[in-house]
Amino acid sequence: MKTGTFTVPTDLLTRIKAAQNILCISHVNADGDAYGSVLGMVWMLRSLGKRATAAMPDPVLPDFGFLPGAGEIVGPDDTADDYDLIICLDMSSADRMGAVYDEPRFGAIPLVVIDHHITNTNFGVANWVEPRCAATAQMLVVLSGPLGIEVDTRLAQCLLTGIVTDTLCFRTSNTTPEVLEAAMCMQRAGADLSDIVRQTLNRMPFSTLHLWSRVLADAHLDQGVTWVTVSQAQLRQAGHEGDDSRLNSILSSINEADMSAIFTEKLGANGSPAVECSFRAKPGFNVGELAFQLGGGGHAPASGCTIAGTLDDVVGSVVPMLVAERRRQLAHTGATPQH
Amino acid sequence: MKTGTFTVPTDLLTRIKAAQNILCISHVNADGDAYGSVLGMVWMLRSLGKRATAAMPDPVLPDFGFLPGAGEIVGPDDTADDYDLIICLDMSSADRMGAVYDEPRFGAIPLVVIDHHITNTNFGVANWVEPRCAATAQMLVVLSGPLGIEVDTRLAQCLLTGIVTDTLCFRTSNTTPEVLEAAMCMQRAGADLSDIVRQTLNRMPFSTLHLWSRVLADAHLDQGVTWVTVSQAQLRQAGHEGDDSRLNSILSSINEADMSAIFTEKLGANGSPAVECSFRAKPGFNVGELAFQLGGGGHAPASGCTIAGTLDDVVGSVVPMLVAERRRQLAHTGATPQH
Repeated sequence: MKTGTFTVPTDLLTRIKAAQNILCISHVNADGDAYGSVLGMVWMLRSLGKRATAAMPDPVLPDFGFLPGAGEIVGPDDTADDYDLIICLDMSSADRMGAVYDEPRFGAIPLVVIDHHITNTNFGVANWVEPRCAATAQMLVVLSGPLGIEVDTRLAQCLLTGIVTDTLCFRTSNTTPEVLEAAMCMQRAGADLSDIVRQTLNRMPFSTLHLWSRVLADAHLDQGVTWVTVSQAQLRQAGHEGDDSRLNSILSSINEADMSAIFTEKLGANGSPAVECSFRAKPGFNVGELAFQLGGGGHAPASGCTIAGTLDDVVGSVVPMLVAERRRQLAHTGATPQH
Repeated sequence: MKTGTFTVPTDLLTRIKAAQNILCISHVNADGDAYGSVLGMVWMLRSLGKRATAAMPDPVLPDFGFLPGAGEIVGPDDTADDYDLIICLDMSSADRMGAVYDEPRFGAIPLVVIDHHITNTNFGVANWVEPRCAATAQMLVVLSGPLGIEVDTRLAQCLLTGIVTDTLCFRTSNTTPEVLEAAMCMQRAGADLSDIVRQTLNRMPFSTLHLWSRVLADAHLDQGVTWVTVSQAQLRQAGHEGDDSRLNSILSSINEADMSAIFTEKLGANGSPAVECSFRAKPGFNVGELAFQLGGGGHAPASGCTIAGTLDDVVGSVVPMLVAERRRQLAHTGATPQH
């Protein structure tokens, strides 16, 4: 578990060692790294003989019910008020805590941050932000060293899940040798990589196939940009929310395109139409800036935003922006077409 | 590069160390591990000051042109006859050498085998067969140790490509900690994992999207078996051979199915219709035996065969066999539905 590349801040270590009753929380719209790191932290603290509770703002997604401890995660209404430390995991800013952070009860409890997002606002009294890690769970593999923790199977399964989901099983460009080393250590500690892949990445309902059939029938390609639209009618017919992450990975592998987009029709709260845009860029290209200009966020290879308007309106205005952005990047940044 | 789990046979090491002019060959219908291991072996031998030539029975696939040394691979007509050793890489039996093995010229030259297939026939004068390795390229990472080779970027890129392609980027069930360790060592030696993923797994022509749209429109699900058919007309419309490996990985992730199949219409040499069947099974299920009974081969999670007949005929006879096979395995082998 020695990964000398990273250093855990002393003040964070001191606070964790001193605390006895700790609340571990993660972010709204939780993903595999949120679940993996919050549960992993709980197992680490318990192995040190401390009391630890995992809490999340939203109900636990059934897909992550396989994680050891998932059944113990509590919601905003079931937290106590006698914690002596709050650890925020995988959260780039305080607003990502959602309803699970109850200011009146928690305001006086020290709060520390462990996160790998470069955009982290350092909102804790101690903050360990390590953007060179591909997942917050990877940071916890590192943390197990100075905390003197012998990683057991439960902990390993949680941490490897965070690493596998955030890197799409080692396919993202931030998959460094240190990521593979952390994953290897978790396998050796008992985590089942094959099971994690099956439970998280390799899962989708049969109806997705017919949804994709309809969506891909209208796949477009124009000047190095490929895109599809997903309507509410198509989603209703499928009976679920689709699988954007997998569809994104398909679109972003098209040889003839350097940028890709999925436009998904949303029903706004007030009934007015809106479109969720999900962008991907190949290495050397950047879709982060455009998403930011459009009121969203993300980073160079993957970003997103939500725009008011109908599918036709939004596609009609955003696709030319993507085409122009790609052309600008080809001309000014030395990016080269990937096909 | 110390992976103490595996032992290189002494007679193989002795023969490699003694030889000075070596022909490295791999199999017909070459895949990423064939290219990666044959080129990796050449770079290893050259770094020891030996002469080494890579030869393959078929022309080099353009997709693997990015591998260092791919441009130097020769075909059956361009081999010499003064080699003092032939190394067969990733080949389970002698017939897999195809036309690149010229018996009259090569019959007297000692031939050794390095391969990870459990079905290997040990057809060399020295044979290193290690089924616990997920790729022959992984075995070469091990071999670099006793040969005292300092792995450089070219060699690392070749070997990591073999590992990534044979494990679908660490998603197959034989991805052990030793696989991740070998991959990590290759990254540290200069291999670019992200580039390899982009060049091998994350590539497909835009026209595949419209092909998939038509194919997935007729996706079926019956009693835990899901399948699609691909007709010659659909392939002609797409203008290429499709991407079975990616389509297989989509079908095998369907929650409601434990077995999946792709039936692809082929035109037999004599004009009579035939169907290529590609099967996948979830953990605990086995499609290897059925493929073997049908005249094909493979192993428990992935197998295939080619059957004479029209698409309708073959689907009509094979799907009930898959359904019956799944039911039998549920009843007799303790396999449990994965959904």
